[in-house]
Amino acid sequence: MMDRFRWPDGKTAAAAFTFDVDAESAILWGNESVGARMSVMSHQAYGPLVGIPRILDLLEQHQVPSTFFVPGHTADRYPEAVRSIVAAGHEIAHHGYLHEQPTALTLEQEIDALDRGLAALADVAGVRPVGYRAPMWDLSWRTPALLAERDFLYDSSLMDADHPYELAITPGAQESLVEIPIQWALDDWEQYCFLPDISGSGLIETPRKARELWQSEFDALRKVGGCWVLTNHPFLTGRPSRAAELGELMRYVLDHDDVWVSSLGAVAEHVRSLNLSPRSITPPDVPR
Amino acid sequence: MMDRFRWPDGKTAAAAFTFDVDAESAILWGNESVGARMSVMSHQAYGPLVGIPRILDLLEQHQVPSTFFVPGHTADRYPEAVRSIVAAGHEIAHHGYLHEQPTALTLEQEIDALDRGLAALADVAGVRPVGYRAPMWDLSWRTPALLAERDFLYDSSLMDADHPYELAITPGAQESLVEIPIQWALDDWEQYCFLPDISGSGLIETPRKARELWQSEFDALRKVGGCWVLTNHPFLTGRPSRAAELGELMRYVLDHDDVWVSSLGAVAEHVRSLNLSPRSITPPDVPR
Amino acid sequence: MMDRFRWPDGKTAAAAFTFDVDAESAILWGNESVGARMSVMSHQAYGPLVGIPRILDLLEQHQVPSTFFVPGHTADRYPEAVRSIVAAGHEIAHHGYLHEQPTALTLEQEIDALDRGLAALADVAGVRPVGYRAPMWDLSWRTPALLAERDFLYDSSLMDADHPYELAITPGAQESLVEIPIQWALDDWEQYCFLPDISGSGLIETPRKARELWQSEFDALRKVGGCWVLTNHPFLTGRPSRAAELGELMRYVLDHDDVWVSSLGAVAEHVRSLNLSPRSITPPDVPR
Amino acid sequence: MMDRFRWPDGKTAAAAFTFDVDAESAILWGNESVGARMSVMSHQAYGPLVGIPRILDLLEQHQVPSTFFVPGHTADRYPEAVRSIVAAGHEIAHHGYLHEQPTALTLEQEIDALDRGLAALADVAGVRPVGYRAPMWDLSWRTPALLAERDFLYDSSLMDADHPYELAITPGAQESLVEIPIQWALDDWEQYCFLPDISGSGLIETPRKARELWQSEFDALRKVGGCWVLTNHPFLTGRPSRAAELGELMRYVLDHDDVWVSSLGAVAEHVRSLNLSPRSITPPDVPR
Repeated sequence: MMDRFRWPDGKTAAAAFTFDVDAESAILWGNESVGARMSVMSHQAYGPLVGIPRILDLLEQHQVPSTFFVPGHTADRYPEAVRSIVAAGHEIAHHGYLHEQPTALTLEQEIDALDRGLAALADVAGVRPVGYRAPMWDLSWRTPALLAERDFLYDSSLMDADHPYELAITPGAQESLVEIPIQWALDDWEQYCFLPDISGSGLIETPRKARELWQSEFDALRKVGGCWVLTNHPFLTGRPSRAAELGELMRYVLDHDDVWVSSLGAVAEHVRSLNLSPRSITPPDVPR
Repeated sequence: MMDRFRWPDGKTAAAAFTFDVDAESAILWGNESVGARMSVMSHQAYGPLVGIPRILDLLEQHQVPSTFFVPGHTADRYPEAVRSIVAAGHEIAHHGYLHEQPTALTLEQEIDALDRGLAALADVAGVRPVGYRAPMWDLSWRTPALLAERDFLYDSSLMDADHPYELAITPGAQESLVEIPIQWALDDWEQYCFLPDISGSGLIETPRKARELWQSEFDALRKVGGCWVLTNHPFLTGRPSRAAELGELMRYVLDHDDVWVSSLGAVAEHVRSLNLSPRSITPPDVPR
Repeated sequence: MMDRFRWPDGKTAAAAFTFDVDAESAILWGNESVGARMSVMSHQAYGPLVGIPRILDLLEQHQVPSTFFVPGHTADRYPEAVRSIVAAGHEIAHHGYLHEQPTALTLEQEIDALDRGLAALADVAGVRPVGYRAPMWDLSWRTPALLAERDFLYDSSLMDADHPYELAITPGAQESLVEIPIQWALDDWEQYCFLPDISGSGLIETPRKARELWQSEFDALRKVGGCWVLTNHPFLTGRPSRAAELGELMRYVLDHDDVWVSSLGAVAEHVRSLNLSPRSITPPDVPR
Repeated sequence: MMDRFRWPDGKTAAAAFTFDVDAESAILWGNESVGARMSVMSHQAYGPLVGIPRILDLLEQHQVPSTFFVPGHTADRYPEAVRSIVAAGHEIAHHGYLHEQPTALTLEQEIDALDRGLAALADVAGVRPVGYRAPMWDLSWRTPALLAERDFLYDSSLMDADHPYELAITPGAQESLVEIPIQWALDDWEQYCFLPDISGSGLIETPRKARELWQSEFDALRKVGGCWVLTNHPFLTGRPSRAAELGELMRYVLDHDDVWVSSLGAVAEHVRSLNLSPRSITPPDVPR
């Protein structure tokens, strides 16, 4: 609150439009039986098949550089879609293999998910990501060190700040990752996602309401010099009316010249250049 | 996204107002004990008793041709209501017998539900439907072939496109069904349905909010040349204020001369006439 | 739809503001352990302690005659509150003893709840009600006959019509009860009620939104000549801002001179005077 | 309703902006395994790390005296944050040790939670609180006597009145606590909180909607001379757009000169000075 975060080129705040390309993986993991449901699978397939081309057009039209978090499974199943993201010049980042929540995995499983995700992105798109976002934004306490061992530059899964920081990979360590925080209110899942027996309570909001929510947080984060990170899913926000409203929001954000609109990779490089002291986060004690 | 879908008569997009006439079946299936709850049954009965006549009046007033998906159980319990739909010139299509979700059935049960549904529609209304919609929009991977064996022209249960296509009945097959996609945001269940212990979290939206949601997607699908398919349930949208708002939405849609307002049967015939190549959809692999 | 319902004095529609005075009973039944939660109990107690006086003032101010459905348990615990309703000239009707859902009871238990409710209303308020509303609007198929045996004139728990009718007490019977239908969208529980682990998903709407929902249905039911029955709970709508909005709604409804604003008892007497043929409702068959 | 509550200095109503500083404790209690989820912990840490400084700024800017209910666990984990509240001149009150719901505890556990909470607030901030609020607003019937034994002046966990009163510590007792009632509609949890598998159904409202809800109740409670008590959580309302809207609401409330804006401690002292007769509340009988 006291010291404002330093942004490049005299900008006062930053904004990033990011996309989690979960497709089928987000619901298959931990619940493989949903693979037998053709309609449910088609709901998820809308993301790579229709949502990604539409969103790439939007980004092109507004000249917004973006970051796409792609599970390895999505890359294996939809290689052309993932390559089209690369071809359009956007950043590809890591999002697990089958969208596995790290806190539900053993150490061995967590390592496996990381490495399989890396392999799929390399094989399919020739990409070595520097960024990571935990599926379900559910980082485990050991994930930061695993990411550092694999030379990741940044993570984007924590929720305890309005701007990025250097995160010590374990409490007290000198080694760090850049952390670019996110929050549930800047996600489209809560506003739009309904899949009976799988996700959601039935609530489906209008694109107008979602935009109002996201825009009000943009206005307020801008005033405090923070980093506004919107997370959208192509299988949700790729729908025409949602994409149209997202386009309006892009225009609104871009109309603010004091805000740096950037991919997360570029944000992370800027943060790293600031030589900040790493911050340690410790698990809570629970008294008996 | 690139090539726009070809609609007849120079139209740039299509719109369909469709109705799922679930009545009691939608909640009895898999939960027969709710049959003992007189109030709950009366909630569902509102559909054929009050909702259908009101909706037929609306369609007549606005001269909108429509498609009604009728479970066999509804036809057996409310024959006059179903005949009145036929008499008004609308299309009757298949929606299971007791609103059985295909993915919860054995092959034998799925066949049985299809054949009993056909028999009920034939017996009650003298109708042989060419269209099918899976209850709960929950198509199984084997349903397309079962429909093709029974000479159905189209299905309307998938969610992976903005416009219709030819769906290969199994991956790689030459034989196909027309698929006319739907989506959860264009359904009234999420906006209106509450039955304690049975369906819904308690959320009941205003008709105004539901219309805003549906109209915004109409506007956006029209711009991309898609096919807007609204699904309403007479037991929900048959209520006076919801039907009134639906009438306003019909007027709004009809005010767009470039949009073809049609039954799904006519949409399917048009699609078939285009001689499109069948598209194959494959179940996802789930790695271990 | 075809023949409009006949209302007295040339009125074209009817409207009733009704109140379910559930207090603690609504949550104690089937879950007695909540009695150990002092805050939860105080949430319910707000109804008789604060909500009822405020609502009686509103009704007096707007000169609206109303019907209060009072569980016997509420009468025993808050006798002064219940007597104040009687003293203000409103109708008291039956709502179970401990808000028992009829469909969860044995025949013996259902009879017991009816008789204990009658005894409590007689003892506390000297009242013999002619109207009944099933707790949770969950009438069993045997309730109508039990009500007829006890000389009730009307029930208000079914949802299959826009206006009242004569309900055959069993299918095919000549004997009937007047039925005055209700619906979930005209209830305040879905809009306002949240009690963690007990009721609600967390949704709490603004009074403005609730009024818009109820008013839009009033407008539409008026046009079709129906009977608009609003159900509010003093422990919810007795809160100041909700009561204020309810007052605005009363003013709005009363501004329509063609609408008969009445208690349900008076509605039922009018319906009985029309000598309508009883309507039979039968439980659904569920095929195997 | 009849006799208006007497407020000091000719004020006609009172308003309090209060904060529950739950941080990690609110979700750790009863579910310690969530401590393994780093992202979830960071979501809660936002409260003391970012939310509290921002809220203290807001209170300073608007010159609003406030009450912060602080679990002992929060004090132990974030001592500087808690001391900053004290340094800013606000009241610190008791909110359990690990946010334990009293009704889920044995007597011994309830005493332990009270005493550990007192010890933590004394150790960390040198504070001996006079006010208490039950975690989850879930007072047990024995809590009032336990509070009286520890010389608390007031509790703020019941929901059965629009203004404060003297609560007999057991039915019929002369000894009493001041009770300052709260309500679910004046809480930010229902409007904003979503943590998958932990809390919330997915609903996240706009700050505008939350403000409309709270402001409408302020307007209405003011008219009846009541005590408007808003409860916000720094981990939720500390987010920029929500804090901004809260600032607007503070300005709105302060624009009403007839309303006393106060901490709860000062409200309680005023109530005590009125020498009101204690009110007894008794648990309900549940008939068999």
